[in-house]
Amino acid sequence: MKLELPILIVNFKTYKEGIGLNAEKLARICEKVHLQTQKSIAISVTPADVNRIANLVSIPVLSQHMDPDEPGSHTGSVIAEDLVDNGAVGTLLNHSEDQYRIDVLEKAIDRARDCKLISVVCANNIEIAEAVATFHPDFIAVEPPELIGGDISVSTAKPEVIKGTVDAVHKIGDIPVLCGAGVKTKEDVKKSLELGAQGILLSSGVVKSSNPEKVLFEMVSVF
Amino acid sequence: MKLELPILIVNFKTYKEGIGLNAEKLARICEKVHLQTQKSIAISVTPADVNRIANLVSIPVLSQHMDPDEPGSHTGSVIAEDLVDNGAVGTLLNHSEDQYRIDVLEKAIDRARDCKLISVVCANNIEIAEAVATFHPDFIAVEPPELIGGDISVSTAKPEVIKGTVDAVHKIGDIPVLCGAGVKTKEDVKKSLELGAQGILLSSGVVKSSNPEKVLFEMVSVF
Amino acid sequence: MKLELPILIVNFKTYKEGIGLNAEKLARICEKVHLQTQKSIAISVTPADVNRIANLVSIPVLSQHMDPDEPGSHTGSVIAEDLVDNGAVGTLLNHSEDQYRIDVLEKAIDRARDCKLISVVCANNIEIAEAVATFHPDFIAVEPPELIGGDISVSTAKPEVIKGTVDAVHKIGDIPVLCGAGVKTKEDVKKSLELGAQGILLSSGVVKSSNPEKVLFEMVSVF
Amino acid sequence: MKLELPILIVNFKTYKEGIGLNAEKLARICEKVHLQTQKSIAISVTPADVNRIANLVSIPVLSQHMDPDEPGSHTGSVIAEDLVDNGAVGTLLNHSEDQYRIDVLEKAIDRARDCKLISVVCANNIEIAEAVATFHPDFIAVEPPELIGGDISVSTAKPEVIKGTVDAVHKIGDIPVLCGAGVKTKEDVKKSLELGAQGILLSSGVVKSSNPEKVLFEMVSVF
Repeated sequence: MKLELPILIVNFKTYKEGIGLNAEKLARICEKVHLQTQKSIAISVTPADVNRIANLVSIPVLSQHMDPDEPGSHTGSVIAEDLVDNGAVGTLLNHSEDQYRIDVLEKAIDRARDCKLISVVCANNIEIAEAVATFHPDFIAVEPPELIGGDISVSTAKPEVIKGTVDAVHKIGDIPVLCGAGVKTKEDVKKSLELGAQGILLSSGVVKSSNPEKVLFEMVSVF
Repeated sequence: MKLELPILIVNFKTYKEGIGLNAEKLARICEKVHLQTQKSIAISVTPADVNRIANLVSIPVLSQHMDPDEPGSHTGSVIAEDLVDNGAVGTLLNHSEDQYRIDVLEKAIDRARDCKLISVVCANNIEIAEAVATFHPDFIAVEPPELIGGDISVSTAKPEVIKGTVDAVHKIGDIPVLCGAGVKTKEDVKKSLELGAQGILLSSGVVKSSNPEKVLFEMVSVF
Repeated sequence: MKLELPILIVNFKTYKEGIGLNAEKLARICEKVHLQTQKSIAISVTPADVNRIANLVSIPVLSQHMDPDEPGSHTGSVIAEDLVDNGAVGTLLNHSEDQYRIDVLEKAIDRARDCKLISVVCANNIEIAEAVATFHPDFIAVEPPELIGGDISVSTAKPEVIKGTVDAVHKIGDIPVLCGAGVKTKEDVKKSLELGAQGILLSSGVVKSSNPEKVLFEMVSVF
Repeated sequence: MKLELPILIVNFKTYKEGIGLNAEKLARICEKVHLQTQKSIAISVTPADVNRIANLVSIPVLSQHMDPDEPGSHTGSVIAEDLVDNGAVGTLLNHSEDQYRIDVLEKAIDRARDCKLISVVCANNIEIAEAVATFHPDFIAVEPPELIGGDISVSTAKPEVIKGTVDAVHKIGDIPVLCGAGVKTKEDVKKSLELGAQGILLSSGVVKSSNPEKVLFEMVSVF
């Protein structure tokens, strides 16, 4: 499976609005906006929710985490084959709330590729984005921790982060860059795309919103 | 939900025979043996498989892992509320392949209790079993790493591990102890119970067996 | 070597006032107060400073960290034999800024004992203090993270933490308990001892003070 | 300080022959070989041994580990300023026995640079060496784990690892590459240099040798 560009990925995290039965409701909303707009929307759910959500909606479902282990004696691991069997099309890796040892990250990206899972690798800053690019994941999302969950807009307050990441990543390879934090409005989305991003990784702005549907319609309207 | 004693818990790990579609097959076999014998059998599956397996079978389903996080901004975590919503009745914690920081373990046991999930905490040795007992989990499984996946029988080669763990744990509280490694035959099961264990945590002996059903029938025959 | 009770342990952390040449100055001040008062004072310095400080002063020097590894192929580890050879008499373990996996902590305490290093194990709360007690370290310091570096006094605001820890630990064994956070004044020290603590683990109150000598004289005056 | 090329770095690890008083003996031997041959030799010692060894010998002393923390409230950390104050000229980072989270590694390299410490970053394979190069450390040592401590010679059995690493790293920047495992003989050293390496990171071959002096003379003879 491929993800259409530009893309909006909604990271459900473990917000109470984003897990279990609530994940089902939110996933349906995301699917509805996709169906009505034909814009590319994917969702990232907890490992435990992958199966039910992948069975529920037609839009692409990613896991929020994957371990690099191969099938075997690894109690508690979330492995690629198991995600595939449960309907995931890809996985986030190295989110700022879930960062990886460098060797583990390299192996996880390889494992995802071998199992035909799309890898969306997060990076804290331009330097880490460039390093991650050498591992040739499918997507890189830049998400400065100081912007996560906050009120600062990356495209107006820190436009150089997006531009710099796009330039650094494209020196290494042709890997789409997502803007992973600090996107609050459709103007932020527009600006991000102008700066070279090919999509957005959003979380609280949608998941914690009193009207996720409205937010989603707005955000994808500039795609 | 409570688990009946004595109990056999089958840890599916991430063996290829224990994940995804194969997890369904194996779960059905475990259920069948339970239905025919009325002996207590529970299963421990990957976080990603909890939902499908809990929806499939009537025997208790545990997750192999749980994080101590509360609902919130914790990308990739496996949290208690999400496991409950997906049908888990409990969780393994601190398996020797997935060991926890002491403060994280204490919080995870508390979180499981708060969410009415049964906690089955593994311990490498008698000393760690005693320490874990002070956190008052629902079960403690002692599993010396040197016996995991090997050919040595804990009840004949190391009977003092079971007896010593039972004694150390019961000094602290009335917590059932499971024998978590080195059980190969029904004689091992019998001996374990005689030494004070109230159940067995099994993995490769069932999951990797060419005839899991036969092994299960044998093992629970001495319950 | 034994540590005299009641004891004040000063944790130098990696404050700029507590490392390298500044560690030497501060260590001399601690030694001076000990020599003038004959009260028991020990200090806890970075692994890299152990050698120079142990060679400089006559009061007991602890490392702030130790790994459980035995001599061998463990690049970067801080091992017991190496600390002993460099003059440490003991080590902190499991400080709230440096927490250990439960199995690693158990092994580290054993390794310290085998190498005749005094183990001072920190615990976040009463529950963890009790668990740690089952490993029989030489000292347990209770340090609720919410009090570390803050302005709340543990002996007035949370006296039940000290009393509860002392009771929980003494159920398991005869291990001296230190009050490890929230001690601001000599009244706090006095109250801590009345509540059953046999010493104090202090850091910023001394290390970041404009007059560490004065603070130390005050604190030990109630011993 | 700069390290002369080509260079032999001896990693003392925590072998009993490489810590404490034995570290002094071994450091003197390394210094002697340097003084007699004028070939570039540096040594990498435990954090706890840095001070005594840096005070003892005139050859460059590196720490085996450094944390990325700044001065502050970081009990147990090995920080750059403290290493500098104790006489280290640099530090190993990310040794295969001590691997780093990708964000931690990036910050540690930055911290080393800011404090004028030489960073020698280890990498398991070509891909990780390339990623690490984007962080612009002073040296990269490639050390496939399967060769560490074993009998296989990297230059004869896996020459493509050295050549491939040199090529991948030099695409990113002008960073000297060291051959970090599988060097057994002076022929291996020679071959490594021919393949583009500018030095060698050795451990057991020297530290565990019955005659480290002889081994060192042989190894540097081809420089």
